[in-house]
Order: sequence, then structure tokens, then C-alpha cells
Amino acid sequence: MSKPLKVALLGAGVVGSQVARIILKEGGTLESRIGRRLELVGIGVRNAATQRPGIDPALITTDLEGLVSRGDLDIVIELIGGIEPALGLLRTAIANGASVVSANKALLADYLGELSRDADARGVDLYYEAAVAGAIPIIRPLRESLVGDDITAVMGIVNGTTNYILDKMVTEQVSYDSALAEAQQLGYAEADPTADVEGHDAAAKAAILAGLAFHTEVKREEVFCEGITSVTPDDIAAAELMGCTVKLLAIAKLTDDDRVIVKVHPAMVANKHPLASVSGAYNAIFVNSREAGELMFLGQGAGGAPTASAVMGDVVTVARNRHRGTAGHLGSAYTARQVAPIGESQAQFYVSFEVVDRPGVLARCAAVFGDHGVSLRVVQQSYIEGGERREGFAARLGVMTHVTQETNLSAVVEELGRADFVGSEIRVMRVEGF
Amino acid sequence: MSKPLKVALLGAGVVGSQVARIILKEGGTLESRIGRRLELVGIGVRNAATQRPGIDPALITTDLEGLVSRGDLDIVIELIGGIEPALGLLRTAIANGASVVSANKALLADYLGELSRDADARGVDLYYEAAVAGAIPIIRPLRESLVGDDITAVMGIVNGTTNYILDKMVTEQVSYDSALAEAQQLGYAEADPTADVEGHDAAAKAAILAGLAFHTEVKREEVFCEGITSVTPDDIAAAELMGCTVKLLAIAKLTDDDRVIVKVHPAMVANKHPLASVSGAYNAIFVNSREAGELMFLGQGAGGAPTASAVMGDVVTVARNRHRGTAGHLGSAYTARQVAPIGESQAQFYVSFEVVDRPGVLARCAAVFGDHGVSLRVVQQSYIEGGERREGFAARLGVMTHVTQETNLSAVVEELGRADFVGSEIRVMRVEGF
Repeated sequence: MSKPLKVALLGAGVVGSQVARIILKEGGTLESRIGRRLELVGIGVRNAATQRPGIDPALITTDLEGLVSRGDLDIVIELIGGIEPALGLLRTAIANGASVVSANKALLADYLGELSRDADARGVDLYYEAAVAGAIPIIRPLRESLVGDDITAVMGIVNGTTNYILDKMVTEQVSYDSALAEAQQLGYAEADPTADVEGHDAAAKAAILAGLAFHTEVKREEVFCEGITSVTPDDIAAAELMGCTVKLLAIAKLTDDDRVIVKVHPAMVANKHPLASVSGAYNAIFVNSREAGELMFLGQGAGGAPTASAVMGDVVTVARNRHRGTAGHLGSAYTARQVAPIGESQAQFYVSFEVVDRPGVLARCAAVFGDHGVSLRVVQQSYIEGGERREGFAARLGVMTHVTQETNLSAVVEELGRADFVGSEIRVMRVEGF
Repeated sequence: MSKPLKVALLGAGVVGSQVARIILKEGGTLESRIGRRLELVGIGVRNAATQRPGIDPALITTDLEGLVSRGDLDIVIELIGGIEPALGLLRTAIANGASVVSANKALLADYLGELSRDADARGVDLYYEAAVAGAIPIIRPLRESLVGDDITAVMGIVNGTTNYILDKMVTEQVSYDSALAEAQQLGYAEADPTADVEGHDAAAKAAILAGLAFHTEVKREEVFCEGITSVTPDDIAAAELMGCTVKLLAIAKLTDDDRVIVKVHPAMVANKHPLASVSGAYNAIFVNSREAGELMFLGQGAGGAPTASAVMGDVVTVARNRHRGTAGHLGSAYTARQVAPIGESQAQFYVSFEVVDRPGVLARCAAVFGDHGVSLRVVQQSYIEGGERREGFAARLGVMTHVTQETNLSAVVEELGRADFVGSEIRVMRVEGF
């Protein structure tokens, strides 16, 4: 009978404690799937004093560097998040010959290429299914199932916190601030919600998805990123009038000249599009590819047990490879596609602004769009009631454009801003799914 | 520079011709993803005289056995379908040291276990993503992503022909026969539609899914199978009244005592369930697992290019392994779970029958259900119009039950059949998604 595979776990928080539970409960199930037993030899944590029911205190250590340097480890599972000390620990683990499993999107968004090359050179595995969209299998489908096809676009809801807040704003007609406060009370948003609400978390995932989909390296800083903090109840109401729901989307697209656009922003999503009805803690990812057409993946995007499911899928895969004395293929040779600036991105837009009540104003507004090559799909005009009416501005125009380039739209907005018949606030939101 | 990997293709039909096109168009893309060039060395076909634009006639051969026996092949792609000669050809290919990729659900439903053991013993790969649900990545997610979790149920729409026919019956209120005739005219159904409409194709896929999900071997003959040939416009209308849509489902569930239920049958699916709105050529698969919860996979279930996408994902994966001198893990040690008889399956049911117009009949009907431990969720009574009214039977009862065991329901139907206040035809349909 062969020796068990030695596993070290870094982090015992929401996800780590579930992973520890699954490995420790083991009654032979994982062994039958791997061909070898897993032995959890250590759990690296920040605070050893925390109560951890069901976990032998002898496994706990605060010396994480010491743990990953043991030299006899087969697998290191990194669930502490953030750049350091996670990056240093993973480098040490790989250098010492361990295969690694990580759920760390922030780290992988910037260091996936480097860590992949390290792992490849050392002949060990690097798996990270849990880094994007929790329990949803999306990394393997991109890395393997669709690798003989050409992906043209990936679009998804990949952040549960913002999805919950936007949901509340739609269903309960509350402001962003009250929706956020409620999410914080219920533990769906952190005390400092910046990473979620400013779109940074989604942007890290977008970078990983874009890199995999287009066989290139995309860094977090190359992702255009706009959060949900400035979404207003008026935006939500305008979306409803247009038959849309506001969602925070992560989008990666291939341009006609073979460059990559990667962006995170709130968007009006057509209600008939399946992403519009993905609510609460669910994540969903759409993939378009040349041969396969449209594919969708849906599931729970966060939470201890769902994320642990994805981590354990990687652990078993890596352990199987280890047991067979091999390592999985780490991906394609990079094609080094350029990331195009957001200005060259193509999209539909919804633009809303106040206008003075004067003959010919609608025609003059339409001319501004036309002059910049932006054609209009829908124009809605609504009159502003007495109390809310500002000096001279009697009506509000809501305009949905056909697909156009961002730079064209910016030129339109700039010109409208200079026009004396247009109010000072011009609101713009991107539109998807028509 | 390393030698190219030698690939043989068996079959050049709808899918095979697309696979050939993708390999032959190759301008370095696949090579960059694999690390080695693919060389298509032969295409085995039944009729060499068929015109095949873009394919060098020198590649074509009708000696399939000779092709797979060459001994220098790295990969054999089997797309001819059916049991023989496909089975013999795959055995020969594996015995000669080639890795194999197959989309042959009929074959794999019965021979997956055996071929996996052969491949494992020979140190080669066996991949078959395209065998279930066309372009949708479902095999890898079950085989790898969810392998550290415990799947409890898989439920899906996995046959496009029957989905198209049922769609037509719903949207155009036509009979099964006219919907089938239209599907045949448009090429969505074959001249002999038996394999699709009797559920055999879906049953083969269900056997494969169940085996993977539950780490056991399930043979095609162990799958309970009921097709759509006896679905009537009345069933469709009754479903609509209950807020449901009729779909042909493939279902694999784990029972409380760790056995497996595998079945294919038409079912009323609650409209709020995402499977209810999966239409036309799309397939969708729901997976329930202990840790990850609910997952859904959606995409095109058939067609040349979508299926070729799945085949090519396997080809690249297998080629990468080949290039690295390894083979992927072929799956779990089988746990040899028993397949439970359909009678022990738990489900909700919709039962519809005519009753005489006599005081106390409704109570007597309800008592029949109650006597067999079947509790009722909804009871609908409708009066039958003069012209359609049969001697003595004035009303029709439509009853949706709570979850119960099939044997209990059968006992109810048998007793109702003997009752003088019940008409001769008792229609039963299973219900899912509430």
C-alpha cells in the first residue's frame, strides 16, 4: 500500500475550514477517487488561539513559511488571499516540489503567468478553479474543453456582493447606500466594501478569464473597471423602462483585429437575456465561441461549502496526477495578444439628460449623436413634474444607441455637455444583451 | 523541433467533416496550444466516392481496420457511431498504443468501463466530451471539477430532436405526429426517428452521466426509458394549466440508501425552473451536489460545429498529454453502486382521468390516493362539454401529487382502474421542478 499524499492547508477561514472538514471527514471516498489517501499534515493560520471545532490543535501552526518549506509536501492549498504573504508562500511551495491549489483571484490576476512558468519548470501542478465564480466549473472548460475552439467573448456576473446590492435596489427601490447597509448587516458585504463595490474583485476575475479565454496574459491593471457606487435609483428605473435590469458585468472580448478588451462595469442587461435573471448569491458566465456557439455556466459564486467544492475538485485532480507521477498541462503557449484601450471598445449605450422645452431641441440632440456616427435605437422623452423641475429644463431624454465605439460616445457626451439646451448632468450606462 | 502527432479520423459525416476542417485549416493555433503540430494521416469512411471539398482524397480510406492498426498513430478520433465496427476499431487503436477520442454515446453507454480499463492498462487516454450534450462541457466538470464533492442528482435535457418536437406541440398546438413530420422535413429528426423519440439516445447519455456522477458503472439496459410518442396535446394543455412545460428529461439520482436511479421520461417541468425554457436545439444539464449546491450548464446539444468543438477540446487535451509523455487519470475506482428499480424512484406525479357525475365521487377518488399514502398537492376538476362527453362521465380530474414512490402511484392507478366511477383511460406524467 502506497504512502498517503501529504497536504498542507494555508488559511482556515470561511473556505479553509470547509476544506479541512471535507479532507478530515474522509471515510475512503476521496481515496477511492484518487487511488491514494490524503493526509492533512498542517494548517497555517494567523491566529492559533481561534477555536476550530473538529480540527486537532496539533495541526495548527502560525509558521506558514516553515510549513511550506518542509520539503515532503505533495500539495499546498492556499486560501489566505491577498498578494503577500500568499505569493511568497506559493513560490516556496513550488520551489520545494509541491503542487499547489489556490483560490486567490487577486494574486492570480497578476501572477498567474509567472507562477505557471515556475510550476511548469518544476514539473508540478497549479490549479485554481475556485478563484473565479466559486463552485462553477469555468476554469477547466476554458482551459481544456474549449481549447480546440476559438473563444470570442466571455461575459459574466462574477461578484455576489454587488449582485445582491443591485437586486435590492431593483426589488425594494432603495438607494445604493441603504442596499449596501443591509448587505453589510447580513454579512454579504464587508465593513470595507471597496474591493467588491468598486469592481476590483470582478476585475481580477475578468483578468484571469480573459487570459485563459484568449491564451494571453492580462494584468489586473489592464482591466477597465467601474464599480456600482454611482448607480442611482433613477438608473434602475430607466433600465426598467427600457426592459432591462442593471447588473455588474465582467466582459472580455476579442476585437476584429485580434486584440482583447477586458472591462468591468454596471450595464443595463436586456430582460430576455439569461444574465438578467441571475440573482443574489448566484454567478453566471456566458461564453461565445466560433464552433460551439453560446454556452452558459450557472451556480453559487461564493460561500464556504461551494468554494470548497471547487477547491477539492482541484485537490483530487492534482492528487491523481501526483499519484501517477505526472502533472497536468499548464496551458497554452501565450500568444501575447494586446489589450486594447477601453475607448476602442464597442457597445450599446443608454444616455440620459435634461433638455430645455424649446422647439427643435430633440432634433438638435439627435444631430449631435448623428454627427459623431452614433445611431439611435430608442429615444424616450418624459416631462419633468413641477416640484422636481430645475430652472428652464422641462423634459428628460433617454436615448439607447446602436452599437458604437466608446470614443464616439464620449465625443457625443462632451458636445452635449457644451450645449446650452442640455442640463448639467449627463448619465451614461452601457447596455448588453440586445 | 519535435515530430508532429499523427491523428486518424474515423467518420467524415456531419461532425467528422467539421473536425477535419478544423485540423486541416490549422495555421499554428492548435500547435501553440499543444506544443506540437497535429498531422491528419488518414480518414476512414464507408463510401470513398462521396465528394469532400477541402479534403485531400489521398487521406481517404475505406480500410478502417488497416488505418487504426498502423501502429504509429498518436490519436484516433472515432465519429462513426453505433456499436460495431466502432468497438473493434477502438479496441485495436488502444491495443496499438493510440489515445482515443470518441463521441459515440451508444457505445460508451455500455463499454465505457471496459474501454477505460483497456486504456488505463495501455497507458493511453480515452476522452468523450462530445458523447453527451454536444458542445456543453459536462464530462470534465463531472470527472474533475466536482470529483472532490458528492453529486446527488443530475437532470437534463439531452436530446435536441425530442425537445424540438415537444416545443412545436406547445407553441403550435399540433399533434405529436405533425410535429414529428415537420421535424423530419427540416432534418431535425431522422427518417427512422426511433432512437430519439423512444428515448434510447437520451438513455445512453443518462447511463454515461450516472456512471460519472456516482463513480459506478451503469449500463444502458439499466436505464428506465419512456419516450415521447404517447404524449398528447391534452397532456401539453394539462401541463400548461399546472404552470408547467412538457420536456423529455434524463435523470440520475442517488437514493437515501446509496443506490442509483437512472431514468428517461417525459415530465411536466415547472415553468419557473430554468429547464422549462430550454428550447429547440439547446441542451441543458442541472447538477446538484452536497457542497456546491445547484449548477447548470447550457449550450448547443448537437450539430456539426458545436460537437466538433467538444471533440477538438478532447483532441488538444489528449495531444498535450501525449506531448508530455503522460496520460490523464481515467476516473475513480468504481464504487459499484446498485441501480435501484424504477418502482423505488421518488417523484411527483400528475394523474388525469374522467369521473362520473355523482355525489361523493371526488372524496372517493381522494381516498384512493390517501389509502396508498399518496398526498395531493393540487386537484383540478373540469366539466366535459356535451360533444366530447362519453356515456356517464361528466367531469375530468387532474391531480398533482406530492413526492411519492412510483410503486405507491402504480397502486393508486391500478385501484382507480378498477373503480366504476372512473373512466377507462388514466393518464400519468411525472412532474419535476417544484
